[in-house]
Amino acid sequence: MSAEAVVLGASGFTGGELGRILSRHPNFDVATVGAATQAGRRWRDVQPHLGAAGNLELLPLDDALATDAELCFSCLPSGSLRGSIETARARIVVDLSDDFRHVDAADGWVYGLTEFARPDLKESTRISNPGCYPTAALLCLVPFARRGAIEGPVVIDAMSGVSGAGRRVDDRLMFAGLDGNATAYGTTDHRHVPEIERGLTRFGGLQTTVSFTPHLVPMTRGLLVTARAPLKTSLNDQEAHAILDDAYRFEPFVRVIHEWPSTKPLTASNGAHVSARVDHRNGFVVCSAAIDNLGKGAAGQAVQNANAAFGLDETAGLEVIGAWP
Amino acid sequence: MSAEAVVLGASGFTGGELGRILSRHPNFDVATVGAATQAGRRWRDVQPHLGAAGNLELLPLDDALATDAELCFSCLPSGSLRGSIETARARIVVDLSDDFRHVDAADGWVYGLTEFARPDLKESTRISNPGCYPTAALLCLVPFARRGAIEGPVVIDAMSGVSGAGRRVDDRLMFAGLDGNATAYGTTDHRHVPEIERGLTRFGGLQTTVSFTPHLVPMTRGLLVTARAPLKTSLNDQEAHAILDDAYRFEPFVRVIHEWPSTKPLTASNGAHVSARVDHRNGFVVCSAAIDNLGKGAAGQAVQNANAAFGLDETAGLEVIGAWP
Amino acid sequence: MSAEAVVLGASGFTGGELGRILSRHPNFDVATVGAATQAGRRWRDVQPHLGAAGNLELLPLDDALATDAELCFSCLPSGSLRGSIETARARIVVDLSDDFRHVDAADGWVYGLTEFARPDLKESTRISNPGCYPTAALLCLVPFARRGAIEGPVVIDAMSGVSGAGRRVDDRLMFAGLDGNATAYGTTDHRHVPEIERGLTRFGGLQTTVSFTPHLVPMTRGLLVTARAPLKTSLNDQEAHAILDDAYRFEPFVRVIHEWPSTKPLTASNGAHVSARVDHRNGFVVCSAAIDNLGKGAAGQAVQNANAAFGLDETAGLEVIGAWP
Amino acid sequence: MSAEAVVLGASGFTGGELGRILSRHPNFDVATVGAATQAGRRWRDVQPHLGAAGNLELLPLDDALATDAELCFSCLPSGSLRGSIETARARIVVDLSDDFRHVDAADGWVYGLTEFARPDLKESTRISNPGCYPTAALLCLVPFARRGAIEGPVVIDAMSGVSGAGRRVDDRLMFAGLDGNATAYGTTDHRHVPEIERGLTRFGGLQTTVSFTPHLVPMTRGLLVTARAPLKTSLNDQEAHAILDDAYRFEPFVRVIHEWPSTKPLTASNGAHVSARVDHRNGFVVCSAAIDNLGKGAAGQAVQNANAAFGLDETAGLEVIGAWP
Repeated sequence: MSAEAVVLGASGFTGGELGRILSRHPNFDVATVGAATQAGRRWRDVQPHLGAAGNLELLPLDDALATDAELCFSCLPSGSLRGSIETARARIVVDLSDDFRHVDAADGWVYGLTEFARPDLKESTRISNPGCYPTAALLCLVPFARRGAIEGPVVIDAMSGVSGAGRRVDDRLMFAGLDGNATAYGTTDHRHVPEIERGLTRFGGLQTTVSFTPHLVPMTRGLLVTARAPLKTSLNDQEAHAILDDAYRFEPFVRVIHEWPSTKPLTASNGAHVSARVDHRNGFVVCSAAIDNLGKGAAGQAVQNANAAFGLDETAGLEVIGAWP
Repeated sequence: MSAEAVVLGASGFTGGELGRILSRHPNFDVATVGAATQAGRRWRDVQPHLGAAGNLELLPLDDALATDAELCFSCLPSGSLRGSIETARARIVVDLSDDFRHVDAADGWVYGLTEFARPDLKESTRISNPGCYPTAALLCLVPFARRGAIEGPVVIDAMSGVSGAGRRVDDRLMFAGLDGNATAYGTTDHRHVPEIERGLTRFGGLQTTVSFTPHLVPMTRGLLVTARAPLKTSLNDQEAHAILDDAYRFEPFVRVIHEWPSTKPLTASNGAHVSARVDHRNGFVVCSAAIDNLGKGAAGQAVQNANAAFGLDETAGLEVIGAWP
Repeated sequence: MSAEAVVLGASGFTGGELGRILSRHPNFDVATVGAATQAGRRWRDVQPHLGAAGNLELLPLDDALATDAELCFSCLPSGSLRGSIETARARIVVDLSDDFRHVDAADGWVYGLTEFARPDLKESTRISNPGCYPTAALLCLVPFARRGAIEGPVVIDAMSGVSGAGRRVDDRLMFAGLDGNATAYGTTDHRHVPEIERGLTRFGGLQTTVSFTPHLVPMTRGLLVTARAPLKTSLNDQEAHAILDDAYRFEPFVRVIHEWPSTKPLTASNGAHVSARVDHRNGFVVCSAAIDNLGKGAAGQAVQNANAAFGLDETAGLEVIGAWP
Repeated sequence: MSAEAVVLGASGFTGGELGRILSRHPNFDVATVGAATQAGRRWRDVQPHLGAAGNLELLPLDDALATDAELCFSCLPSGSLRGSIETARARIVVDLSDDFRHVDAADGWVYGLTEFARPDLKESTRISNPGCYPTAALLCLVPFARRGAIEGPVVIDAMSGVSGAGRRVDDRLMFAGLDGNATAYGTTDHRHVPEIERGLTRFGGLQTTVSFTPHLVPMTRGLLVTARAPLKTSLNDQEAHAILDDAYRFEPFVRVIHEWPSTKPLTASNGAHVSARVDHRNGFVVCSAAIDNLGKGAAGQAVQNANAAFGLDETAGLEVIGAWP
């Protein structure tokens, strides 16, 4: 089968990554690209890697929404699509903002953490793609929650490559200021907190609170989560590893490893690495997950979800092996 | 006054930073440098920044220990000095390894977290310089412990510039592998854990356990700690800030700020930035500290301690303003 | 068609990149991997990105050479294969060292700068893959040499990501020393100089000398060449651009652009970007080329050459769109 | 002696570096800071490293120019000071833009490449601080020009840390785009070309043309120049080194070294490293210089020039040892 796709918000980093992934996808073709402020320019003029594949002109968003493409990826900022989604003509929409992440399946939107949402994805036409931090946090925590092995409050630290902040021209994101720099950011009420808590409940049956601190570090791609959850049952390192292994043994993109995950081997892939250990002195399971924030944390998972919705092999067009070093 | 100093382990990163700091110190002169495997070379051949100040020849360690210098800084790896400290002729020794950090003051060693150890430092002749992670962790936690505001277990995440791993030629520390990479490392029993726990007891009167996860991120200098401690008493953001402010208002090197600390403004200085907020949903104080791991985390604090031991102004030869950007 | 491949020197960066590329190649399968010091380990233990694709055991080199694979890629250091090439049983060998780059076609080796070597590659069984610096330098200079538009001496500056230095554990290549650092390196007789001069003669008919200065800069991948050649004929910017455009208009991997090439859009691809301008005040054409040193500068071009030798589409298994940002 | 100083353009990177240097200067005190768009804010709010030293309010430029400070440093963009310099009340003005670099000494401005301008600096009240690229280029070329050893055209490549581009919020200078990237930039008529050519004539008596290509590489500080000049007289490596050595033997900030200079050992200092070799095959001297673009390339040299103009020791308040690693 073959489907035409439209990419909204195609001038940002996630839009560029979708362009790269879809250029080699066997079933989807980018037929239309839309952008807000960059409309009128060629796609490749704002995405220097796309070359000949970026010959399309960036259309105004309304024009792009109105095309006949069967599949729509929206990389627009949160709040943008909410008002215009009704006018989208695409049969299947994958939205990468957090506009619809809290919406109940009853409203027609599926929260697309692929590994846990498969039954719903197969019939879905409206998919809300998870945030990058929640994706990594849930991948390493949900298997323990499902077993009833943990409770809260869960303390999560995370660090993300700066491409996760989007393609904003912002003093804090300049090379000179970020190079050689590390800092926590955000308040204790980061917008990803409720998304993580909802995910723990939805997929793990665990109702608890999360204390989440994201950090900015000098790298472009890659996202790392380190989580500590109080143990409800006694576990050792082998049992903790086995719980993850049971959850992901047959997953094409999630790999359970023994050492701590590191972000670099996942660069430009849709892969995720997870691992866990037990901190006996404090009664915590310490688990960690690494992804590429633009891959499994955004564009990669969006394509994985679209594959599932179209009934394709989930791995179509996606890499599990990253670019290293 | 003027004193001659010997630097042991002068070929490493901390030894190089001591060379830079002491080159502008008004009272201390480096008269002798010692090294293990690099003995026989000029200091500047292994420290490219020292230039003419690095004309000294690196002596074998025994020869360096036997000189008449009144002050000795040891940057040797843990375990090295323990056997030979008896033969040191220097009146005042500052050891930067963790060999003597657990030793009781009764045995003649003072644990030199300067801001909290002043009464002991004035009379001391043997100073054990704190580790980089414990320095940052204790600076942001001790004021809350002293007030009886927190209990445990305390969850601490930290990230350090790679110079903190020393000047080892190690596959994991190569540029190609670390650039664009982030990872947790170590076990749940990192050697800094007992040092932090002891410091909380010694300076804050708090007996508890710590769950500590260090991370390696792609930067050379800079160390950031983010700590979450359960609150015993109700606090709001202003009160949390005030507790830090009370503790450090008159300190020359520790600055309490409102935003989250970032490492870069402290580069090549002996400064520290700390701040705190309250996570009401989880009942935690979230506090953070940034230092230069080679500054307040190693060579800077060593000089600050030597200044105190000699009765000098603590700021002699030290910077509070970092190199930015 | 389908062919089994053996990769020698599979534990290095180029070997890892070949693993990544070949994992998605429709016609070649890695059946055997060989290594010198790392023999006995699993491939994935030294290549953290390969995951399940890296399940093979690294064989001793002699054992690997003796397998039945039809295609052999050798990423061994220069000098390693020279003595044992006679024992290679593979029908087609692509050697990435500089052992056979100077050898005449009469001796059975083809110098595989693919875009200029196609007639020879189709019948070849022994291919010497060009160096990373010569690849970029020749791509931007040969079209001008062919037209008789330039003479010498040609002044070439270049900078390379540190992965070009191989996976050596070397004090100069540690993160702490390279981060924030830039330096020229090598003598004025870099081993790539004769390779560039020979290439200008072989492909461009220009017999001249080259003054070449490579630089090390703090990045992992990417190679940039800036060359200045005295003009023999009068050219303006448009004519200079047209000469490149004529040379590469139908090439899948070489793109002529108007702005100066930058390395990042080519990351993890086999692409090359070239451009040129005229410096009228000095009578030079100034031309520049960017590649990924592990892509078109090593593993990518090796696969492109193998594709050509097997009569496959040259683009099989290769990307022209890089990972950006 | 003690003098009050005003810093114009104090919100940029060079203004921040002046703040750091002057905070430890024994004779100059920053009494006033001025800024264009940032006027009204505290200095430390835009310079996170300055801390308590940055308590001053940023005044509008006209107000700052009208203060009684005896010494004025202007870090304003080119073109800004030209119209208002007449109203400056400071006895001594050091301008860091290129507004007055081409002006003849007869007009009252001295071109302050300190090592070669000393006779003029002692009596000067208007000093035009050299550009960062010309400073490095002239330091390694002028000694050869003075000896009549070289002619043109001189081919110069250079790379600069991104802080040299100023504190502009610009898409090309974002971390995500610059990290892992290298590119040439500018036209063949970079504004620094005439400045270098004038400097070669003024200080070296050489009238020739320069072909100059600057590059942007992923680092924050540091500037490296590699120059090739045709030899007029026969030289070997030792003689080339001796020519530099003769020129700089007694200079406090310029160090002649045998290996190629690298930028990192000079970070946050006013030092410069230079070296030279002979490329016999092409008849070139190849010389290279490294500086910190914000140090000897901007703020450091400005203070060195002010020291000279006030009759102070040139090294007052300046470092020759950089922060490494």
